Amino acid sequence: MSVFGCICISTRTFCKSITQNIFSTNKNLEIYRFCSKNLYSTEIGPNLTKLVYSTMAPGKKVTVVGCGNWGTAAAKTISENAAKFDLFDDTVRMWVLEEQVDGMKLSEMINTLHENKKYLPSIKLPHNLVAVPDLNECVKDADLFIFVIPHQFVKSTAAKIKASGNLKPDAVAISLIKGVAILDNKPVLISDIIEEELGIPCAALSGANVATCIANEEFSEATIGCADVEQARVWQRLFDRPYFKISCIKDPTGIQIYGAIKNVVALSAGFCDGLGLGSNTKAAIIRIGLKEIHRFAEEFFPAVSKDVVFESAGVADLITTCIGGRNVRCAAEFARHKGARPWEEIEKEFLNGQKLQGVSTCAEVHEILKACGKAALFPLFEVTHKISFEAADPSELIKAFSTEKLEPVL
Amino acid sequence: MSVFGCICISTRTFCKSITQNIFSTNKNLEIYRFCSKNLYSTEIGPNLTKLVYSTMAPGKKVTVVGCGNWGTAAAKTISENAAKFDLFDDTVRMWVLEEQVDGMKLSEMINTLHENKKYLPSIKLPHNLVAVPDLNECVKDADLFIFVIPHQFVKSTAAKIKASGNLKPDAVAISLIKGVAILDNKPVLISDIIEEELGIPCAALSGANVATCIANEEFSEATIGCADVEQARVWQRLFDRPYFKISCIKDPTGIQIYGAIKNVVALSAGFCDGLGLGSNTKAAIIRIGLKEIHRFAEEFFPAVSKDVVFESAGVADLITTCIGGRNVRCAAEFARHKGARPWEEIEKEFLNGQKLQGVSTCAEVHEILKACGKAALFPLFEVTHKISFEAADPSELIKAFSTEKLEPVL
Repeated sequence: MSVFGCICISTRTFCKSITQNIFSTNKNLEIYRFCSKNLYSTEIGPNLTKLVYSTMAPGKKVTVVGCGNWGTAAAKTISENAAKFDLFDDTVRMWVLEEQVDGMKLSEMINTLHENKKYLPSIKLPHNLVAVPDLNECVKDADLFIFVIPHQFVKSTAAKIKASGNLKPDAVAISLIKGVAILDNKPVLISDIIEEELGIPCAALSGANVATCIANEEFSEATIGCADVEQARVWQRLFDRPYFKISCIKDPTGIQIYGAIKNVVALSAGFCDGLGLGSNTKAAIIRIGLKEIHRFAEEFFPAVSKDVVFESAGVADLITTCIGGRNVRCAAEFARHKGARPWEEIEKEFLNGQKLQGVSTCAEVHEILKACGKAALFPLFEVTHKISFEAADPSELIKAFSTEKLEPVL
Repeated sequence: MSVFGCICISTRTFCKSITQNIFSTNKNLEIYRFCSKNLYSTEIGPNLTKLVYSTMAPGKKVTVVGCGNWGTAAAKTISENAAKFDLFDDTVRMWVLEEQVDGMKLSEMINTLHENKKYLPSIKLPHNLVAVPDLNECVKDADLFIFVIPHQFVKSTAAKIKASGNLKPDAVAISLIKGVAILDNKPVLISDIIEEELGIPCAALSGANVATCIANEEFSEATIGCADVEQARVWQRLFDRPYFKISCIKDPTGIQIYGAIKNVVALSAGFCDGLGLGSNTKAAIIRIGLKEIHRFAEEFFPAVSKDVVFESAGVADLITTCIGGRNVRCAAEFARHKGARPWEEIEKEFLNGQKLQGVSTCAEVHEILKACGKAALFPLFEVTHKISFEAADPSELIKAFSTEKLEPVL
């Protein structure tokens, strides 16, 4: 029985018998090796024909737009799957903004040494991951775009891709970018910017994802938000690895709002640490933050669902961000000095001068809420802003909630 | 204007003007001092008449059933409110199972030294909290029962209260007990046991509540689950303090399931610590635990709502339990020794021989799931049981989730 016969016949019964062999015995190892490249869902049963992806169709070409810490870690994961499943073209292209690193071009380093010493040192990258410094060449004929660049460059980069004339009309995109843009004092989803600029659908992926941990294959999870189920399956098959488990929900909005705003809550949680408050209190502040994140999402994107809370992009990312992480450490230092040490100085000491995400997001969220007159509905975000930028004493954090007033009973 | 005049006239307009004074100026301090005893909601507006509780009605008599660590801390909080609000009788009675402490009776110690040196040392208790060793006397004419005893004693204690003949037919109860009972291999809510034994409604209160922290007035929160809105308002007024903020949801079920089962997840989280796993992984395990807690609740109590997740009894209690706490510490020790140190030995070292809640709950949950054939739906609970009781290596925790299999896309 030839492998092509298997795929081309593709009748329900035949596929089922093959797949049963695959799963129940090791007799058909040759077929297994072939078919495993083609399975992109684990459903077993009447819909089995769906499972076998025709080898007659070329594999989807994947382009990663970005080569930073998270971009490179994600590209490594993706490349492992691209090599394994015929659903994808073997080669994964990664757009690299060229620079000199250790006396050589970054793209050359990735393509010859298979390492990104600048952004993801000590991690061996798969050979099928190819760095391409020319954006036009990198995106040519791509079917799947993974955006993972700083959010301020998304619009211009997407515009360049569109202008290249190389964009396939049925391409799709996913954003791995944590953050939201702001337009007319309202939050705008990165996926919406990509959709608008490229004219193709854009999903989102987020989760409790420290890039280096995933590159080291420490067990992690992420959530994909994608309105289209078939597209979600393709993205899941592209990202899911035994050490990086992906669940999918239909809502790309919640994913992105949680990913962006959680850093404000991390500042509040850090203030708790700096004030020496106990776990009861810190848990209360994180919970209030969770509610305000969701309220923020509902305020600006009324269709957002509550499902994201249960996902890695929801509660898990919030927990890990509020327990450890740079925002918490820096905010604790800020509170210990009662705001007398400026953020810039703390950033210099703790982050080698890199900017703290939570601080800028806190300022942006405040501007958005002030502009729409809804600040009073977000007491945690507001008091965190007052402490961060208006010289309020860090102890105000708790005073804001320690009131005689009762919560309304609904 | 006399205070009684204010209360007895009780017209909408008049109340509103008084309350506006109360909230907008300090002119009517005398009225404020009086009215603040009678306000049990913060609603301002057309329903203001509801806010003023008639002084002609006697204050509700409060009885705390239990005098342990959490019982005494809760009784302190309650007594502060009972002294302040006319809605309640000044005296709060606390049932004390008599014992000798430091050469004196525990009830005498509480009533004369105003301290419970055995269960809540170094905390001054309000003078209006009265310890009563006789159960019949303690519950006589009580309107509000707070149950806070070990769950195995609930049924028998409630039966004794019923048998006393002193139970008012319009009394109501609330359970502060974390845990569920098991009957015919199914979980039974403590509030349901109390409702059945006493024939009165029973709400539930739970949250991220370390008793000593609340007794020390460190800022904390809790959630009341109560199907009846008016009753919820009374419970909220009884428990809410500036340092202990209470929100209410209609669902007493979720409150109790989360409070009971979270300790199993704390074991899993502790194994992560013992295995030296990073924050990505621990966040993933906590999230999987959250989903399984909710699935467990839905399996046995289909009417349970998702709202509890956002509350202190939900995500906050889970976070604080999985970050610190005795279950996590002991489970980490267990994992470090690859299960070679028995739980009893670890309990002896870490807890002075007290039993670890998570370990017994883990065994109970396993029995329940085995009996109904649903174990496969709860991989985290199951692998935690295998590690805890069936000599599985702690590293199995991650292997259970690190699979090639994709999560179904819904």
